[in-house]
Amino acid sequence: MARSVKLYDTTLRDGTQGEGVAFSMEDKVRIAQRLDTLGIHYIEGGWPGSNPKDLRFFRRIQDVPLKHARIAAFGATRRPGVSAEGDANLQALVEARTPVATIFGKSWDFHVTHALGTTLEENLAMIRDSVGFLRARFEEVIYDAEHFFDGFKADRDYALETLRAAEAAGAHCLVLCDTNGGALPHEIGAIVREVRRHVRTPLGIHVHNDTECAVANSLAAVLEGAGHVQGTINGFGERCGNANLCSIIPNLVLKLGIEAIPEPNLRELREVSRFVSELANRKPWSQQPYVGDSAFAHKAGMHVSAVLKHPETYEHIDPERVGNHRRVLVSELAGRSNILWKAAEYGLDLAKDTPETRRILEQLKELEDQGFLFEGAEASFELLMEKALGRYRPAFDLEALRVVVERRQGDHEPFSEATVRLKVKGVPEHTAAEGNGPVNALDHALRKALEEFYPSLREMTLVDYKVRILEETAGTAAKTRVLITSGDGEESWGTVGVSHNIIEASWQALVDSIEYKLKRDERRGLK
Amino acid sequence: MARSVKLYDTTLRDGTQGEGVAFSMEDKVRIAQRLDTLGIHYIEGGWPGSNPKDLRFFRRIQDVPLKHARIAAFGATRRPGVSAEGDANLQALVEARTPVATIFGKSWDFHVTHALGTTLEENLAMIRDSVGFLRARFEEVIYDAEHFFDGFKADRDYALETLRAAEAAGAHCLVLCDTNGGALPHEIGAIVREVRRHVRTPLGIHVHNDTECAVANSLAAVLEGAGHVQGTINGFGERCGNANLCSIIPNLVLKLGIEAIPEPNLRELREVSRFVSELANRKPWSQQPYVGDSAFAHKAGMHVSAVLKHPETYEHIDPERVGNHRRVLVSELAGRSNILWKAAEYGLDLAKDTPETRRILEQLKELEDQGFLFEGAEASFELLMEKALGRYRPAFDLEALRVVVERRQGDHEPFSEATVRLKVKGVPEHTAAEGNGPVNALDHALRKALEEFYPSLREMTLVDYKVRILEETAGTAAKTRVLITSGDGEESWGTVGVSHNIIEASWQALVDSIEYKLKRDERRGLK
Repeated sequence: MARSVKLYDTTLRDGTQGEGVAFSMEDKVRIAQRLDTLGIHYIEGGWPGSNPKDLRFFRRIQDVPLKHARIAAFGATRRPGVSAEGDANLQALVEARTPVATIFGKSWDFHVTHALGTTLEENLAMIRDSVGFLRARFEEVIYDAEHFFDGFKADRDYALETLRAAEAAGAHCLVLCDTNGGALPHEIGAIVREVRRHVRTPLGIHVHNDTECAVANSLAAVLEGAGHVQGTINGFGERCGNANLCSIIPNLVLKLGIEAIPEPNLRELREVSRFVSELANRKPWSQQPYVGDSAFAHKAGMHVSAVLKHPETYEHIDPERVGNHRRVLVSELAGRSNILWKAAEYGLDLAKDTPETRRILEQLKELEDQGFLFEGAEASFELLMEKALGRYRPAFDLEALRVVVERRQGDHEPFSEATVRLKVKGVPEHTAAEGNGPVNALDHALRKALEEFYPSLREMTLVDYKVRILEETAGTAAKTRVLITSGDGEESWGTVGVSHNIIEASWQALVDSIEYKLKRDERRGLK
Repeated sequence: MARSVKLYDTTLRDGTQGEGVAFSMEDKVRIAQRLDTLGIHYIEGGWPGSNPKDLRFFRRIQDVPLKHARIAAFGATRRPGVSAEGDANLQALVEARTPVATIFGKSWDFHVTHALGTTLEENLAMIRDSVGFLRARFEEVIYDAEHFFDGFKADRDYALETLRAAEAAGAHCLVLCDTNGGALPHEIGAIVREVRRHVRTPLGIHVHNDTECAVANSLAAVLEGAGHVQGTINGFGERCGNANLCSIIPNLVLKLGIEAIPEPNLRELREVSRFVSELANRKPWSQQPYVGDSAFAHKAGMHVSAVLKHPETYEHIDPERVGNHRRVLVSELAGRSNILWKAAEYGLDLAKDTPETRRILEQLKELEDQGFLFEGAEASFELLMEKALGRYRPAFDLEALRVVVERRQGDHEPFSEATVRLKVKGVPEHTAAEGNGPVNALDHALRKALEEFYPSLREMTLVDYKVRILEETAGTAAKTRVLITSGDGEESWGTVGVSHNIIEASWQALVDSIEYKLKRDERRGLK
């Protein structure tokens, strides 16, 4: 039988210590459900003693049916000099009414005397009392040995004594924490091996990424016998983040053959990663191992041709096993085979080494010099190919556009209006529309002018609008790149615009988006 | 004597395989100079055989004095069936006229027969011939054993044979590559240990980050005796990136006591990381270990109070050793001590638990709900504190503003104009100005109105302008957050604005930026 490891997710608690990470109570509930479906064993929901919002979460989650995961509430050992029963923090834990309680205690003598300001002996009593108190009130008690590795290096015997205190009081799992994230894998491995000689309680591992070794540190502990791994989705967490479960899980399951979540569930991994980024309102990390947009993206011409023949030549796993997919990037480094691949995807038949291929490559270089990037804007790239092939026919001719934003004293919100004058199929159209910003107004005016002629545009919505400032150091005169993602329920596509003027850049991307939709409908004979 | 390791940077070659990474020729020269100053031993400049731009770089770099680093040109072994002398790729390498040549060859039998389409025997001859050919023409020849770890797992003996072929032909260093990035540290360690029993030539390591273990994998090889480490600044590179030198270097120097770059040079690390991100036009990775903005940022109230007393309680190293610094984040999780710290930084004396402290915390929460984030916008936060304390006096009163963007058929660029009507010190001002975009025009009109009254605004420039779309899925109706960094030669400061309307959000940040400048001048008695 394969070895197994329990996964303990702390995205909702330690993850929210990350810069720019915050979840509403409802977000936390949705994330917990998603983690449950993925097959995570424990979900740490928050610290009821430190944050009233967390207490509301624990109330709310009691009504949510979970298939698999157990909810844990987090807290600290009692304060020095009070009884466990009289400690408000421990009482708040009990009020959370979860099956699992996780508390941290100090392992590092320096922290006990200098941060906590108490004696080494009292700290041991605090651990014993608190674990004992919780043991009587929860199904399961997990003990987080904060700063364990630093503590072990500073005073090995005392650090081990703190573990034995938690063990004696009945903790179900002793989690060794590298709280400052400064340890390296060979140290983690050696210390876990040593600890196993001194305690019988199952060990866990909780590390941070300050040396960029959090994933390797977690694996080093597992290889030395730790059976419980703590981390967060996408590695969210304070400073450089916690250990990233999105990498640890596939490393355990696919590389080490250790049971963690059922292998088929791995296919949800990318989706879970995006979902959590979305709710945290954080841009996904594109290079993220396994689940990132770039994780299976190929740019070098030579690699591309090899990957087309045999994916295993440049891919360590089949991307679909983690719900990801292969991508071929269009860029100046691209050999012709990338262009061909993209062209083929869109039904354009470009033979190698023709004048058309060269023309497309030249235009690509010129536009990239201006700041265009077609990664993520495949629809604009397709229009570029059409233009280079002399096949492009515009859906309308612009005669003039104007955008006005106005605000007067006392106005709560500024007023935005756009007017557009254009010719569609020879017919002049002159429209005006409002919006809750200049680009939104422009979008409305343009649609107003076109929908009569192209009714299928009504199905189309703009699902994503991104702005990136190029040459950021040029202040408000900087160049702007706008990326728009549009969809019509069947498909979604990306377009790009670049200009010093954000209105102009948005206009370019808007027009490309509409042209692409019309061209695709035409190709399908929908007109 | 301490062990030492040679650092081999391939940011300019393998790094540019990363999605969204591209450097101009002049960028490459500037980066090479920066790496030289940092103390990197080898700088791989490009692949002359695959990219004509790279050949220009090698010509240009010959006129650039380097203190320390040796430039390497990259290439492949000769093609099957031709002589080394007759191979265009190897000839291009020679033309690069660098002291060091690095070539890669195949170690994995599957790659030889399936990607290269030749015999195992011919591949060995290709390695021998190519290394021999270069050996006679370069001071130093480095052999990159592509896919070595996968090759070793597939056919151990053949993989070792390829290394012996390069060794016999005189390679100075055999670099074991995990090209697909799928290996884990314990495998790397075991395989390097085994390889050392079969070759005498010094070993190097080159890995990718597909399991999020690239840094740990590099260290595992060093701990088993590899004396040469390849990587890139910030881990730029194809898919999930190459091994990140910005983490490897401090891990070697500060954690393992291995000589790599002189310890004082480590203080340049953060600057080098930012410099390379800037030239690649990539947003810096804020959680990046050692050098990221968040690497020493503290959010949890309890951590903050401890760090203030004893930094080592929650910091694994002194941030200044790598040119970074401690930050305290303002957020809803912030205990009062964060606010006090920020307040103290700006000379505001807020005692704990006063009505003012509570008022600031409440306003903070409310604004964060709207999408404001004061991380990076300390000047806006200071104005918020002033407002909460009832001390704020506006520098002017806005009566109306209007921004117009217009484009007519045949115009190359749209026309942008802003008008502003306001009262300064009771005097009405009504100005208009153009700009190369709507926000730039607004900036000009506002300054025109104010500079007469506040001449010190002439010293102020907007050095950075960033736009972030919140709720990206709302399309063009999404909320916009604008972050502006301004400076006056002495100091720089950040301000923030949030609105559905990008013009309004920019206005808020512009106004805060001006108010902050005036307030600071006033405080210093400059008026």
